[in-house]
Amino acid sequence: MTDTKGNEKSTANAMWGGRFSAGPAEIMEKINASIDFDKRLYAQDIQGSKAHAQMLAKQGIISDDDAAQILKGLDQIKGEIEAGTFEFSRALEDIHMNVEARLREIIGDPAGRLHTGRSRNDQVITDMRLWLRDAVDGIDTRLAALQDALIAQAEQHADVVMPGYTHLQTAQPVTFGHHMLAYAEMVGRDRGRLADCRKRMNECPLGSAALAGTSFPIDREATAKALGFDRPMANSMDGVSARDFIMEFLAAASIISVHLSRLAEEIVIWASDRFRFIELTDAFTTGSSIMPQKRNPDAAELVRAKPGRIIGSLVSILTVMKGLPMTFAKDMQEDKEPLFDAVESLILAVEASAGMVADMKPRPDVLRAALAAGFPTATDLADWLVRVLGMPFRNAHHVTGAIVALAEKKGVDIAELSLEELQSVESAITQDIYSVLSPESSIQSRTSFGGTAPDNVRAAAAEARKRFSV
Amino acid sequence: MTDTKGNEKSTANAMWGGRFSAGPAEIMEKINASIDFDKRLYAQDIQGSKAHAQMLAKQGIISDDDAAQILKGLDQIKGEIEAGTFEFSRALEDIHMNVEARLREIIGDPAGRLHTGRSRNDQVITDMRLWLRDAVDGIDTRLAALQDALIAQAEQHADVVMPGYTHLQTAQPVTFGHHMLAYAEMVGRDRGRLADCRKRMNECPLGSAALAGTSFPIDREATAKALGFDRPMANSMDGVSARDFIMEFLAAASIISVHLSRLAEEIVIWASDRFRFIELTDAFTTGSSIMPQKRNPDAAELVRAKPGRIIGSLVSILTVMKGLPMTFAKDMQEDKEPLFDAVESLILAVEASAGMVADMKPRPDVLRAALAAGFPTATDLADWLVRVLGMPFRNAHHVTGAIVALAEKKGVDIAELSLEELQSVESAITQDIYSVLSPESSIQSRTSFGGTAPDNVRAAAAEARKRFSV
Amino acid sequence: MTDTKGNEKSTANAMWGGRFSAGPAEIMEKINASIDFDKRLYAQDIQGSKAHAQMLAKQGIISDDDAAQILKGLDQIKGEIEAGTFEFSRALEDIHMNVEARLREIIGDPAGRLHTGRSRNDQVITDMRLWLRDAVDGIDTRLAALQDALIAQAEQHADVVMPGYTHLQTAQPVTFGHHMLAYAEMVGRDRGRLADCRKRMNECPLGSAALAGTSFPIDREATAKALGFDRPMANSMDGVSARDFIMEFLAAASIISVHLSRLAEEIVIWASDRFRFIELTDAFTTGSSIMPQKRNPDAAELVRAKPGRIIGSLVSILTVMKGLPMTFAKDMQEDKEPLFDAVESLILAVEASAGMVADMKPRPDVLRAALAAGFPTATDLADWLVRVLGMPFRNAHHVTGAIVALAEKKGVDIAELSLEELQSVESAITQDIYSVLSPESSIQSRTSFGGTAPDNVRAAAAEARKRFSV
Amino acid sequence: MTDTKGNEKSTANAMWGGRFSAGPAEIMEKINASIDFDKRLYAQDIQGSKAHAQMLAKQGIISDDDAAQILKGLDQIKGEIEAGTFEFSRALEDIHMNVEARLREIIGDPAGRLHTGRSRNDQVITDMRLWLRDAVDGIDTRLAALQDALIAQAEQHADVVMPGYTHLQTAQPVTFGHHMLAYAEMVGRDRGRLADCRKRMNECPLGSAALAGTSFPIDREATAKALGFDRPMANSMDGVSARDFIMEFLAAASIISVHLSRLAEEIVIWASDRFRFIELTDAFTTGSSIMPQKRNPDAAELVRAKPGRIIGSLVSILTVMKGLPMTFAKDMQEDKEPLFDAVESLILAVEASAGMVADMKPRPDVLRAALAAGFPTATDLADWLVRVLGMPFRNAHHVTGAIVALAEKKGVDIAELSLEELQSVESAITQDIYSVLSPESSIQSRTSFGGTAPDNVRAAAAEARKRFSV
Repeated sequence: MTDTKGNEKSTANAMWGGRFSAGPAEIMEKINASIDFDKRLYAQDIQGSKAHAQMLAKQGIISDDDAAQILKGLDQIKGEIEAGTFEFSRALEDIHMNVEARLREIIGDPAGRLHTGRSRNDQVITDMRLWLRDAVDGIDTRLAALQDALIAQAEQHADVVMPGYTHLQTAQPVTFGHHMLAYAEMVGRDRGRLADCRKRMNECPLGSAALAGTSFPIDREATAKALGFDRPMANSMDGVSARDFIMEFLAAASIISVHLSRLAEEIVIWASDRFRFIELTDAFTTGSSIMPQKRNPDAAELVRAKPGRIIGSLVSILTVMKGLPMTFAKDMQEDKEPLFDAVESLILAVEASAGMVADMKPRPDVLRAALAAGFPTATDLADWLVRVLGMPFRNAHHVTGAIVALAEKKGVDIAELSLEELQSVESAITQDIYSVLSPESSIQSRTSFGGTAPDNVRAAAAEARKRFSV
Repeated sequence: MTDTKGNEKSTANAMWGGRFSAGPAEIMEKINASIDFDKRLYAQDIQGSKAHAQMLAKQGIISDDDAAQILKGLDQIKGEIEAGTFEFSRALEDIHMNVEARLREIIGDPAGRLHTGRSRNDQVITDMRLWLRDAVDGIDTRLAALQDALIAQAEQHADVVMPGYTHLQTAQPVTFGHHMLAYAEMVGRDRGRLADCRKRMNECPLGSAALAGTSFPIDREATAKALGFDRPMANSMDGVSARDFIMEFLAAASIISVHLSRLAEEIVIWASDRFRFIELTDAFTTGSSIMPQKRNPDAAELVRAKPGRIIGSLVSILTVMKGLPMTFAKDMQEDKEPLFDAVESLILAVEASAGMVADMKPRPDVLRAALAAGFPTATDLADWLVRVLGMPFRNAHHVTGAIVALAEKKGVDIAELSLEELQSVESAITQDIYSVLSPESSIQSRTSFGGTAPDNVRAAAAEARKRFSV
Repeated sequence: MTDTKGNEKSTANAMWGGRFSAGPAEIMEKINASIDFDKRLYAQDIQGSKAHAQMLAKQGIISDDDAAQILKGLDQIKGEIEAGTFEFSRALEDIHMNVEARLREIIGDPAGRLHTGRSRNDQVITDMRLWLRDAVDGIDTRLAALQDALIAQAEQHADVVMPGYTHLQTAQPVTFGHHMLAYAEMVGRDRGRLADCRKRMNECPLGSAALAGTSFPIDREATAKALGFDRPMANSMDGVSARDFIMEFLAAASIISVHLSRLAEEIVIWASDRFRFIELTDAFTTGSSIMPQKRNPDAAELVRAKPGRIIGSLVSILTVMKGLPMTFAKDMQEDKEPLFDAVESLILAVEASAGMVADMKPRPDVLRAALAAGFPTATDLADWLVRVLGMPFRNAHHVTGAIVALAEKKGVDIAELSLEELQSVESAITQDIYSVLSPESSIQSRTSFGGTAPDNVRAAAAEARKRFSV
Repeated sequence: MTDTKGNEKSTANAMWGGRFSAGPAEIMEKINASIDFDKRLYAQDIQGSKAHAQMLAKQGIISDDDAAQILKGLDQIKGEIEAGTFEFSRALEDIHMNVEARLREIIGDPAGRLHTGRSRNDQVITDMRLWLRDAVDGIDTRLAALQDALIAQAEQHADVVMPGYTHLQTAQPVTFGHHMLAYAEMVGRDRGRLADCRKRMNECPLGSAALAGTSFPIDREATAKALGFDRPMANSMDGVSARDFIMEFLAAASIISVHLSRLAEEIVIWASDRFRFIELTDAFTTGSSIMPQKRNPDAAELVRAKPGRIIGSLVSILTVMKGLPMTFAKDMQEDKEPLFDAVESLILAVEASAGMVADMKPRPDVLRAALAAGFPTATDLADWLVRVLGMPFRNAHHVTGAIVALAEKKGVDIAELSLEELQSVESAITQDIYSVLSPESSIQSRTSFGGTAPDNVRAAAAEARKRFSV
């Protein structure tokens, strides 16, 4: 998205005014200039250039003195950019040319030798890999924080009962902690996807040159190592034209955003005045001057919406790369803005999610009361009939159905039916059945591995802390 | 896409640095602040407010004096924004609050009365409809310019023969003009979609208030009319929550971009050094200092890539709106950036396409020479056998196949076979057959409505000028 | 989606077993054979062929006797297909070849003349336009039924009060009828999109032949008219390669599905045991033998999910067509299955929606009780302060906030505060304020056009019946 | 995609005919019945049930005799399905119920005990994981075959020179083998993604029961191990509601399809009569009876189109899962058809790609001749000026530009200019320069790691065989 800065009027005019806003020259400038969005690659660009210069000197391709000047000049430029004194020029198109031109101003001719044995093609894509690798690390840190918050909730509320839903209808009792850990697992796999993606992208294209490699005796192992890559990429054409590392990241990001949107939807529903399952503080809600009691779950809604942007970015890059012949084409310049946008959106979503999870407080009384409706222990009753009376499942279901119908007719929960009433449906039922009819006894009984029994939940939380190192 | 302006360093830090870049407050600010991207709605926001104030006064809901002050203040603000002296504040979240706060500074209390009988919900969406309506008009103008360029090419090259391809394999001769007119037709339907979309979106939500309408005696017909809308929207809940006008626009934009990408792909292929079907000037290509003969079709490649961004935006908004309950939710704030990005991308693509079409020159000799390969008149031969000799199609195909095989074996075009050679395959063939074997005679014969005969093409170009008013 | 019929085992083997399931021949057969999915075009294919044959005879291109035999043969084939006695052959690839081969069996040589002046390229795409036109009509009928059901609900429940939500938080009272009419409006625009799409696609490509038109003296106006098209398409290359009518339809279908998913989400939420806003019968829910009281809103959930499939189909065709050069390429065969799938999914979703809307019953008592929470008339209170006391908005908001806070502290609704309590916050408040504090008075006051006042809703329902002819 | 089998007429009527094709009952059947598409899970369903029954017996939950009968019955059912004698019933909804009902017919009451300690929720998703794991293995085998074919081409044509393109414009010479290896690398990463995806999905949800775990003393480690899973999933709610394994697979599949579409586009272009870079046999092309010389690259076009379907499926499942609360909802039934469709599409695309790569023959003479245009060794010339004359890059570019312009003016390649002519531009040039001006010397010089020098290519091919085990 090109930003409409400065004079808004001229932009408005440019956009709607004349028949043609731009002459050919202007269009080509718009097409070519990427400096507005690729300047965020400045640190990676300088990092890559320094590694390249050092390698060139070590290989004797440029002199040590030239290399020293280049390094010093690049450091100065980095300082200027970070101090906000660097003047970016649209005429110089992109971050790479902006840095290069400035380097020439500072150190003169040696600047020209920096480009020996590389081209803009491999330079750009090296920067992108460095940048995205950093971004992945930043996201992973935040996902770990989210897991930490989820597990903390699980530890604190391992035995707070609540309705477990299917179809948003009460199905069986679960605990709030168990519910939280389900998300900790999803996030765990999300982190695994990021780790795999990071590993796969961590190969160095530098030295692929324009597309065919170079005749200069460069040392690609050295630059790869200096930049923290695992190895140089094995094929120069692949080096400059591969974009699957971006697609894979955006796919992983899309899945993360979908997971977060599920949690966000639950938060929106739980925070509604019909549910009231949780409390959210002002930190993640907005109110209204007129209705001070209001807690609009804006943060949750934004997280819920973010898959839109991120899936959109994924579709963008897949569409751009579909059917593109080798090696480089200008089409590929369209890989940056969707990626940058997705990274920002994702970071915002993960931070907001972690914040909300840490912030929210379940209301145990409301959650318990909600279990009074919906006969959540009907399954427990049926299981008791099978386990204790040895009844075949089909019969057990039939008997359970009859008991539920009776309770519904009387307007009570099944645990509130008398033994006589229960025996009026099935005479073999004994007092023991009450041991499975309350939500509390139900969750206590779910001791199978991965089940919702509070002790299981506590153990699972501890195990998750270890497994996910959070 | 939030732009990373100013101090790049702090952004980098914010992004990768600490475990948590932002405290809750910062996250909520990021979530809520839309001023960075919605400030481009300023003109529409002021336009809408003026219409509302005038109506309030006319209905006696506010005094004429208050209205006069409001109008004057709003005009002043517009001037400030367009002069670049307006100070936008992130704390004031969005363009609406920024304008409102400044209005209060300028005129004091009467500013507060502007909000009578409306809410931010209907205000925002009125602005969006006004903005997009303007954008649609701007795009339509550019599409008309593209049609103009296509038809001009058709007029000029109505009888330049070239290979008509299926599967990128020579199939039948067509004329360059005919090929251009195919795109003029596509663009014609594209404009039709925009016109329908414009018409459907041109209803006024102002007066829906928060969601339920208002108890103030407002006149919605009046504001609708003042703002150029066809009518007020009929349901207040629909008024504030409908986003289908954005989805429909983005769908129309996606289809346009796909059409343009087809043309762009052809330009890339035609400009390749194997094809050389057209010449493009420097205006829409880039070269290289090292290879001055080079003409990289950057503009065409960017146009080819643009469906990525635009389809991505369409997917974004569809995803955001999927399953969203009534009426307003913060999710809907995510409708803006993808839309703005798509509009800019589309305008760039249409302008570049129109520019390239006007710029490119077909090479008649190369196009004609390309027809020497591929036996493009085999169908004409078969049709002649059917028409003149009354042969059933199946037999005609068989004979044609045998003749083509003979020509292939001899390494000549079928028109270069002697009558004896032709008769060696089918004795009934006469001299007359040569009247259909050249590309020139082939195109002359395609006189069915919509066919490629040069006179048809000229007539079609004239008719298209009329039909599309270009 | 190719269906895996017949011998499941061999399929499993084919799929996972050997290193290569298929030799080249098999792969090409899979690539080329479309009969499994395009046989549903049989009726349109025969309809198109009949119109073509009649035109050929009228133009004297084939004899009347040939034409008569062709028509008779085609009718017989249609009968065979509809009787289930037609034997489809994969070796004959598609529906067109299957019909043609059978026609030859039945009538012999004249079958061959049917293909005069057309090719498979224009035949296929004519069939598709006819088929989709029929599908659009079928969908429109169903959407009208949905509107009918929505308006009927509005008529019946024009004054049933319920919470109007923003952020799923109570904002202002609305009526159930008003809420229903919001959807009737959305569906109205959906129908408008379909109508525009139908009109735009209703042009006839028949006679474009392979791509260049034909030398036979065909009458394209005649075939267009006979098939109910508005006119022949103006350019033969466009005729065979245009697919925007499919993209436009799938975009319209996607938007419809998103609208329906919003309603479906509301139904799921309303049917939850926390909300209980509506009742759904067994007709659109599923239960469980074990929990007979359960009403899982399966139909609503499926409608909510359908945008997935339909947007997926839209993305498919956009992706396929992106960057495709003229005219025909095999890629385009991929237009059919996603379209067929989307049409079936959409019809199912619309029918299920109409059925659910007709089926559901709001629970007025539950809806009214829900308004006891959330202070839904706070806005009314503020408006009263502005309107009656002439208070500036800012002050009115401040006073309202204080009153709401007081009510919240006391655990009552604001209408339950005594006049003294109200006056303790703002002494100018009079008894008259109670006239706006109940939900009932609130909705009565929203008389602005499009507002939720019951009389408005009744009038809007009547007007909608007229406008939408339902 | 629900298949329209049987009586086509009634379907047509159902679809377009009446106002309402289906009563509520019919709609619910359509919504609920998944047997038409999920029957392909039969083998996995039986496999899962057998493992569950054996575990139940080992844990003493059911008797050994019951288990024996269950196993025998299930084997019989598998036999019936594979023999085609099993009668699938729509009334029984899905594959699980079909198998269960038949088991009851065969063995009676013990069939009912099979369901102890599991529910349909965990059963369905276990089947899906087993099925997709098998599919992934099948796809990986085919991708290895594709790599094998690519590397074989590289080995055979390691020193066949051809133009290396950027922007589809000649940039530098590369070898055909080098070009092939670029794709071998892409496919290598594709296989890595599949392997990671397989590993992550290989956890067993069986025993999650409905959502909360079970009170029966099941052994989840045992069933997980018996079914080849690495471990049981750690959280029962996650177990039944996680669908990220499908999203991740579809993302990996989308990226594969995009890679294949790039190769397919190149094949289409290379096979065009302007390029003629390769020959394809009849095995992967189609001809026409009328133009027997034609070789339409249908297989390549279909591969190029396949990203449409597969990305469409990815978007489907992401859209469906977005914002879905825990745990199961009917929405999730929409995960199957897009997945099945994508797997079939992908297998077809990979097989066709492997087949085409094995089939295609580069035309060395044509490829070499193509290098006569476009001055592909201009970079080599500039590098020589830098390396040998010590000229700064900027000057070297300037001199090269002048020489290229001279060659262009004379209509010759730069290698064809005389030494005098070269020296007229830069007097320091010596005879030695000719050692870098031919395409052959150019590729020989690109010896940097990953470069196109033939010996590099041969070494890279050998290394790739080892690394990818093909």
